[in-house]
Amino acid sequence: MTGPIRIALVGFGKIARDQHVAAIAATEGIELVAVCSEHGAAPEGIPQFASLDAMAASGIAVDATSHCNTPAARFATARRSLELGYATLLEKPPFATLSQCREIEELAEARGLVLATSWHSQHNAAVDAAKAWLADKTIRRFRLAWIESARKWHPGQEWIWQAGGFGVFDPGINGFSVMTKIMPFPVHVAAARFEVPGNYPMPIAAELDIAAPVDGFDGKAVLDFRGGDSEQWDIAVECDEGTLELFSGGRRLLIDGETRADHGNAEYRGIYADFVAAVRAGTSAVDLAPLRFVADAFMLAERTTVEDYQP
Amino acid sequence: MTGPIRIALVGFGKIARDQHVAAIAATEGIELVAVCSEHGAAPEGIPQFASLDAMAASGIAVDATSHCNTPAARFATARRSLELGYATLLEKPPFATLSQCREIEELAEARGLVLATSWHSQHNAAVDAAKAWLADKTIRRFRLAWIESARKWHPGQEWIWQAGGFGVFDPGINGFSVMTKIMPFPVHVAAARFEVPGNYPMPIAAELDIAAPVDGFDGKAVLDFRGGDSEQWDIAVECDEGTLELFSGGRRLLIDGETRADHGNAEYRGIYADFVAAVRAGTSAVDLAPLRFVADAFMLAERTTVEDYQP
Repeated sequence: MTGPIRIALVGFGKIARDQHVAAIAATEGIELVAVCSEHGAAPEGIPQFASLDAMAASGIAVDATSHCNTPAARFATARRSLELGYATLLEKPPFATLSQCREIEELAEARGLVLATSWHSQHNAAVDAAKAWLADKTIRRFRLAWIESARKWHPGQEWIWQAGGFGVFDPGINGFSVMTKIMPFPVHVAAARFEVPGNYPMPIAAELDIAAPVDGFDGKAVLDFRGGDSEQWDIAVECDEGTLELFSGGRRLLIDGETRADHGNAEYRGIYADFVAAVRAGTSAVDLAPLRFVADAFMLAERTTVEDYQP
Repeated sequence: MTGPIRIALVGFGKIARDQHVAAIAATEGIELVAVCSEHGAAPEGIPQFASLDAMAASGIAVDATSHCNTPAARFATARRSLELGYATLLEKPPFATLSQCREIEELAEARGLVLATSWHSQHNAAVDAAKAWLADKTIRRFRLAWIESARKWHPGQEWIWQAGGFGVFDPGINGFSVMTKIMPFPVHVAAARFEVPGNYPMPIAAELDIAAPVDGFDGKAVLDFRGGDSEQWDIAVECDEGTLELFSGGRRLLIDGETRADHGNAEYRGIYADFVAAVRAGTSAVDLAPLRFVADAFMLAERTTVEDYQP
């Protein structure tokens, strides 16, 4: 492949329209050539197909696909994409289950195709700076708070509340993707308490105890979908050498209260830049640590039923 | 290492006493040299220590450890065992969470030590025969039923009902370990319905829909801890070429109603025979598919609260 990677978006909801289209346009070495979706209207000049098979049948030249549909729908489209011979990029979380991840990984490997997971919050300069700063510090205390209004951020996303929709872990997994990237040692869920609305299976709030192989480590995470107008997507790490704070979903870094990095939202461009590099190198880039962390929380959780939620 | 592998049992509850001691005695190339447990009395002539550290400090020569304590306790003892330089074998399920598995795998790799998971139900001649028979069949329908009385099989095991204790998935994971071994293609949980007693966090019963990359595949599993005096640990697989049945937790195989394999309980001997081979070869043998399957079920589950359970 010498020209730009010809990519198709699969699923065309809010995030695809708001983020992916612009990110692809702004990234060198890749261009949007099609949209596969039964809903939504593709950007002007971009052909839209009802399915991957319809796109393949049209004879249009495609090298890769980016899957922005729901986690539950992604398994079938990722499988088909690989069967059709396309490099495949998956929105976060890659799938509803870890066994699906494993199955698709094995398929990509068998076909010799690049498979990549994306965790948009990891693609911030502040996150890289945080990781570099923490690398040689003595960490004592870790706090993560991911609190937002489901009504503000997920209007009409009924799937998020259904089984396999992750509930408050859909945003929370962004925080965990930052955590697993910046921490210099592995962490795991030691205990989890979920609040679950009476009328849906997925949690509306969660509190996790986080453990690490470090004496006296004290880790906690709080997720809540009942936030107000302004959201809190924050991580704080107290070390013997000082305190690190990441605000705004990993976009702003402070060390001991002093701003060290603060930049706009280039997260989705980072995803596509990495994907271009992965496809050029022919190397899959699958990171399951954030999803594994969430699956563990579900397995360990004690649940309390709270009042019904009206979306 | 030229003599037999000198192994210590960590944790000395019902299964260690009833199964592991005899299995080690019956397996060539391995001998029991110590028990690490604050409870229970080691077999006559075998020294008992309160902890791995106490054992190490005693100067006794040990090559390997077998961890029969609870899944929740296993993480700390497995870590310590590897730090002390012992090859490490883990009862099923290896840990309470997948992140813990990953962390311990990485530690074993870094130290160049053998780590092995054990799934006792996989070690039946009938299971191997089932796998061989299914390899070239056209599978249409899969049924798994793991129904037993918690009062009969888990008296006093309060931990099984607590968060991280797996509830009915503690026996159920044995069935899934047989399933992931015999099926010629990957399967995953498509939907899960749990029944959870009002007074405990872990499920007392579960029903799973199981999917596979095969057109028209119809898969279901039913787990129940409210069984009667006799237990049902059965798998049935309908193929175009005939029907396979595995009864008694994988011990008895029937094809079209005709017995093809039926043997006694040598499951734990199989575990130790495999472990001896792994240690001799210097190759870890970690199989996480059954635990991944269970984690997925917890992540997808819709839950119904049922009446309180009195152990």
